[in-house]
Amino acid sequence: MNNFQFKNPTKILFGKGQIANINQELHPNQKILLLYGGGSIKKNGVYDQVMQALKGYNITEFSGIEANPRYETCLKAINLVKKESIEFILAVGGGSVIDAAKFIAAGVYIETDPWMILSDRAKVKQALPIGTVLTLPATASEMNGNAVITRDATKEKLAFGSPHVYPQFSVLDPETTLSLPARQIANGVVDAFSHVIEQYLTYPADAPLQDRMAEGILLTLIEEGPKTYADPKDYTSRANIMWACTMALNGVIGVGVPQDWATHRIGHELTALFEIDHARTLAIVMPGIFQHKSEQKKHKLLQYASRIWNITEGSEEEIIHQAVDKTIAFFESLGIKTKLKDYDVNPEAINEIAERLAKRNGEIGLGEHQDIHQQDVVKILEYAL
Amino acid sequence: MNNFQFKNPTKILFGKGQIANINQELHPNQKILLLYGGGSIKKNGVYDQVMQALKGYNITEFSGIEANPRYETCLKAINLVKKESIEFILAVGGGSVIDAAKFIAAGVYIETDPWMILSDRAKVKQALPIGTVLTLPATASEMNGNAVITRDATKEKLAFGSPHVYPQFSVLDPETTLSLPARQIANGVVDAFSHVIEQYLTYPADAPLQDRMAEGILLTLIEEGPKTYADPKDYTSRANIMWACTMALNGVIGVGVPQDWATHRIGHELTALFEIDHARTLAIVMPGIFQHKSEQKKHKLLQYASRIWNITEGSEEEIIHQAVDKTIAFFESLGIKTKLKDYDVNPEAINEIAERLAKRNGEIGLGEHQDIHQQDVVKILEYAL
Repeated sequence: MNNFQFKNPTKILFGKGQIANINQELHPNQKILLLYGGGSIKKNGVYDQVMQALKGYNITEFSGIEANPRYETCLKAINLVKKESIEFILAVGGGSVIDAAKFIAAGVYIETDPWMILSDRAKVKQALPIGTVLTLPATASEMNGNAVITRDATKEKLAFGSPHVYPQFSVLDPETTLSLPARQIANGVVDAFSHVIEQYLTYPADAPLQDRMAEGILLTLIEEGPKTYADPKDYTSRANIMWACTMALNGVIGVGVPQDWATHRIGHELTALFEIDHARTLAIVMPGIFQHKSEQKKHKLLQYASRIWNITEGSEEEIIHQAVDKTIAFFESLGIKTKLKDYDVNPEAINEIAERLAKRNGEIGLGEHQDIHQQDVVKILEYAL
Repeated sequence: MNNFQFKNPTKILFGKGQIANINQELHPNQKILLLYGGGSIKKNGVYDQVMQALKGYNITEFSGIEANPRYETCLKAINLVKKESIEFILAVGGGSVIDAAKFIAAGVYIETDPWMILSDRAKVKQALPIGTVLTLPATASEMNGNAVITRDATKEKLAFGSPHVYPQFSVLDPETTLSLPARQIANGVVDAFSHVIEQYLTYPADAPLQDRMAEGILLTLIEEGPKTYADPKDYTSRANIMWACTMALNGVIGVGVPQDWATHRIGHELTALFEIDHARTLAIVMPGIFQHKSEQKKHKLLQYASRIWNITEGSEEEIIHQAVDKTIAFFESLGIKTKLKDYDVNPEAINEIAERLAKRNGEIGLGEHQDIHQQDVVKILEYAL
């Protein structure tokens, strides 16, 4: 196991009816910004529950945060926060709204252009406190210090992380997710699956507990994912998916082990250029990573094949091949296509993506060995043709 | 899954050399109480490493905290803290020293007799901040808000918990454990094993991820425990045991599921009356709980038999019987005896123990169904004859 430092101070309020308890986490005198997206929370009753819990509180609203939240929109929110002397941001929605809240919370205090937090890793020294009411299980942004923001003008999608932007509290009420379209639930399951894979499927690091915990999340997603996809009204399976998505990226399974994240980095380019749902880009890229890196990742791929898919027969090569097929079949069973042509992406785009990444990273490659360079990205994406 | 609230703000600094970083977690102007036990930290170099890291800091020492820390000793430390206006307690040692630090930190502020925190669940509203340097993996006290204190005068061993006594930080350097006697390592493995069982082996609660994470810890303890017991110099297995012990009781696997804790409650009486090592009392009691409650716990016992011990052949009764045998054999393989006579406890003591527990609990029984009463305790302990 590698040395590590770990701290996750977010308080989780999990289960039916927990929105009613958010007033115990907030001071009545605080000026609160209520941040949300396109207004689905007004249709499914979540907005009403929040307002009921915060009756008499000082609330300013800002809506219109997009899926893949835009820098340009966040800038407007930062101006509003400054103008209204907001003291707390309550994000109600999915990972996009929560990511936006983090960027806004940090952007208020940054002395340079807030974009520098993303483009030049300008250090975040302070941020407004955040709370969240999660309505879409997927990103685990509700229990970590990371955010991804997209800039429309330059078609860039970049990430940042800071200990200052962990939510103080997050409400996870599975009932808020019962009205979600199947497409979004499928996206969430695949996003969380990919988060686990990025922290697990690298090389052995003598960390058997982290391995088993990662495998526990993968198995839960595989068992519960199809149940909740088939029957959105099944509270139990939705609760399990919600908690599995949070555990997939709250830091617990990633301590002391190497991490990959090449799938996400390549996927972000696909979203930025072609507006493909984040999770679907991961389903396109991940099988290619497994295949292009099958030698380096061999030990873990064999463990994954055996412990997750019960594949033990055949040569090592055949076992790995079957594991890739099983992974693709799992994504497809949730209605998530894995080929570029399914999303009308032209094969010529592959070179553009590889070039963009190479330009952004310079000499530093992607992946747990930092050895995925421009030509590797081309080969990885060619598996998705 | 049941509703739950979860928060664990402790920062973990894990790995070789991390003691040197504690000065980044402390203010040089704070008056620090350095709390430790019988002085083993002076022999194994941990004391020197701490003093080196805190050169120039304002430190007062208090040593002599016992295994099963005594109320009477803690009272002396509380007086010292008040007299010296101590602002931070740094506990260096195992669970006993850390538990004592928590009781002292809370006791300083309590308006009644501090014993009321334990005997009458007097509410802890405030506590001094705590940090820890863990030298003995076992209790997970380094990453939770619980403590157990023993009162010599009345031979009582009682627990309390409060969100105010989570350590702000804990250093887990596996190298500090390399000089531990095999007996203590064995105790730690069995203690952690029992912590997992108390949160896992109850009844199904539709929480498959918590189950798999609990199973991951059990499997890690079973695989790595004998390695580290056989070769104390194996850093890797010791690191894995250290992290598994922390994860066993930092709250993660216990969210949203029923919990038992009867093994611990009965075990505490054995320690209070006969000074048997805490972990050894658990090894005495646990098999009896499995057997006495085999009908109520049937579903989980079968899952435990299958997923932990690969037992699938035989009737349900036979499978459970084999799982009990495997559990006992595991404890015994670490040199931990599981019968009362191994510790020279007279069979007549069984009634005394059952009576003491009944007196303390009144009508409320032990276990996940609160249905383990005086006569059940007798039967459970009779399995250990």
